[in-house]
Amino acid sequence: MQVRIEPPYLLFLGDEPDPTHAKTALGIAHWRPDASVGQLRLPGCGVDLGYPDMSPAEAAEAGAKTLIWGVAGVGGIIPESWIPMLFEAVEAGLNICAGTHSSLTEIEGLAVAADKAGVSLIDIRNPPADLPVGSGTKRSGLRLMMLGTDCVVGKKFSALAIAKEMRDRDMKATFRATGQTGIMIAGGGIPIDAVVSDFVSGAAEILSPDNDDDHWDVVEGQGSLFHPGYAAVTLGLLHGTQPDGFVICHEAGRNVIEAFPGYKAPTIGELIESAMANGSLTNPDIRCVGISVNTTTLLEEERQLYLNKLSAKYDLPCVDPVAIGVGPLVDHINTLFPGAAP
Amino acid sequence: MQVRIEPPYLLFLGDEPDPTHAKTALGIAHWRPDASVGQLRLPGCGVDLGYPDMSPAEAAEAGAKTLIWGVAGVGGIIPESWIPMLFEAVEAGLNICAGTHSSLTEIEGLAVAADKAGVSLIDIRNPPADLPVGSGTKRSGLRLMMLGTDCVVGKKFSALAIAKEMRDRDMKATFRATGQTGIMIAGGGIPIDAVVSDFVSGAAEILSPDNDDDHWDVVEGQGSLFHPGYAAVTLGLLHGTQPDGFVICHEAGRNVIEAFPGYKAPTIGELIESAMANGSLTNPDIRCVGISVNTTTLLEEERQLYLNKLSAKYDLPCVDPVAIGVGPLVDHINTLFPGAAP
Repeated sequence: MQVRIEPPYLLFLGDEPDPTHAKTALGIAHWRPDASVGQLRLPGCGVDLGYPDMSPAEAAEAGAKTLIWGVAGVGGIIPESWIPMLFEAVEAGLNICAGTHSSLTEIEGLAVAADKAGVSLIDIRNPPADLPVGSGTKRSGLRLMMLGTDCVVGKKFSALAIAKEMRDRDMKATFRATGQTGIMIAGGGIPIDAVVSDFVSGAAEILSPDNDDDHWDVVEGQGSLFHPGYAAVTLGLLHGTQPDGFVICHEAGRNVIEAFPGYKAPTIGELIESAMANGSLTNPDIRCVGISVNTTTLLEEERQLYLNKLSAKYDLPCVDPVAIGVGPLVDHINTLFPGAAP
Repeated sequence: MQVRIEPPYLLFLGDEPDPTHAKTALGIAHWRPDASVGQLRLPGCGVDLGYPDMSPAEAAEAGAKTLIWGVAGVGGIIPESWIPMLFEAVEAGLNICAGTHSSLTEIEGLAVAADKAGVSLIDIRNPPADLPVGSGTKRSGLRLMMLGTDCVVGKKFSALAIAKEMRDRDMKATFRATGQTGIMIAGGGIPIDAVVSDFVSGAAEILSPDNDDDHWDVVEGQGSLFHPGYAAVTLGLLHGTQPDGFVICHEAGRNVIEAFPGYKAPTIGELIESAMANGSLTNPDIRCVGISVNTTTLLEEERQLYLNKLSAKYDLPCVDPVAIGVGPLVDHINTLFPGAAP
């Protein structure tokens, strides 16, 4: 009951001139370099992921199963000039996976062509059908969840980095995706913010099913418990995940909820307190295991002092996952949960 | 952007033998006796609401605009033998409003017949389209929200009783419905548990829009902040409602979350604390104004002692809304919010 995307991928970049609009493709290339066999670019494209350029037919020949729409595009619109390539893809036998605002099925004839070719058009924004109400039942295995002081503070990056660090140490770990980009990177997941509210915690339960006792599910967060628009998404994800541990994700200097100027971002202490109070409903043993901060707003010489101060204040390891890496977080996790340590 | 149901109603009871399956119709008849012109019963029906029996044509003649599906039915299935009457209704020019598990539109030919007759088939489970993300912006007017220690503890009843008591005192008050039965009673509302989680708090904002400074929106609750399956619904509704006051709803003796045996129901004190902590995000002045308890599990001689003990413990008025009425709650609300008192 999760969204599934069949690898290997062909990464479609269209004629996108600006790499900052190709975050999805860049994320897939960064976190799963082996997931893709090639890139597909139209004239004028300014992005290069370093993969061989391939037509859909060449990619299919090389084993590709799915074309991934790897760019954001302006307003989520599908440009007219890109459409012929989508037909080429389905005719070459590739599924297409996209999360654009306009649906692939709105492109006249594409759904029929996909049917005829026996391939799927996967709208990554659509949650699976028949999700259950959360049961609250405990599952085997361990779960780690990212909780942000706001949206866009590095939850996905932190989760991916921690899962990778764990696997690099020969620990059992799986990144569990809850948003579009994460799902494309992972090749599966549930777009949790698109789930009907009655089934959010149930969807989160499905997302990290029973597993080995020494296996970590590292769950990408969504929203923030202190977000006036999205806190319900976060709470349902928290209740269904039943995390054994959580990592606070924050951006240095972010004092207000982005685009909600009347709303202060919580302090890290306030967020820990709320996460403990709310999360203990479905896992009484929940605990904070560390802090992950995006410090790009700080000068380089300020960074370590800032992290040290936070670490001392909350008696927790505190890292910038890009500049420092998440090693200290995983060290601490392994102290707290020795049964799953390598 | 709310679901709207056009009155007056014709209450459809089918051949339901058992009044306990006709709670919706009974609720409409109890809370809005003037909303309906008649009842429609098939042979074998064991329910009598006291309205004149009418065919759809007779009801239309008497001014009815909407046939309300007033019974629960087994498994939410629409019995074959009831279907001809639904066609009669649309042909007589009545809309049909239902919340059954099988959709009205699945009945072959009914949607076409409704189109032809220029009437609507209203599935009360479908939220309005294009709901926004919650903005967190403060609205004018006052809001009172019901918060339950569990589901099915009397939130809807308490909200309806308080809104009625306020109007009986010539206060400005509107009941705001968040579930199927409440929406049918009110003639409008939003089925909040069916809203996509990203838009739950936005839906709650739409539900109780700007109003006069001395006007109370009395918002039916949903779920419980301590429910492992539904707490996300409750939190989104709480954040979007931005209540100035809340009433704790409880059933005496309910110590576990119904159908979730591993989960204790919160104490009233724990629920007040959680509601204050979570609710203060969007309304820092939120406060608990009283407690409403269903005491049917107690002996009559125990009731007042039980209520007195709770009242003393939490320093709040505490009533059984059926046995005692909600007068003491409204008295206390008027002390706390004198600007809206009569």
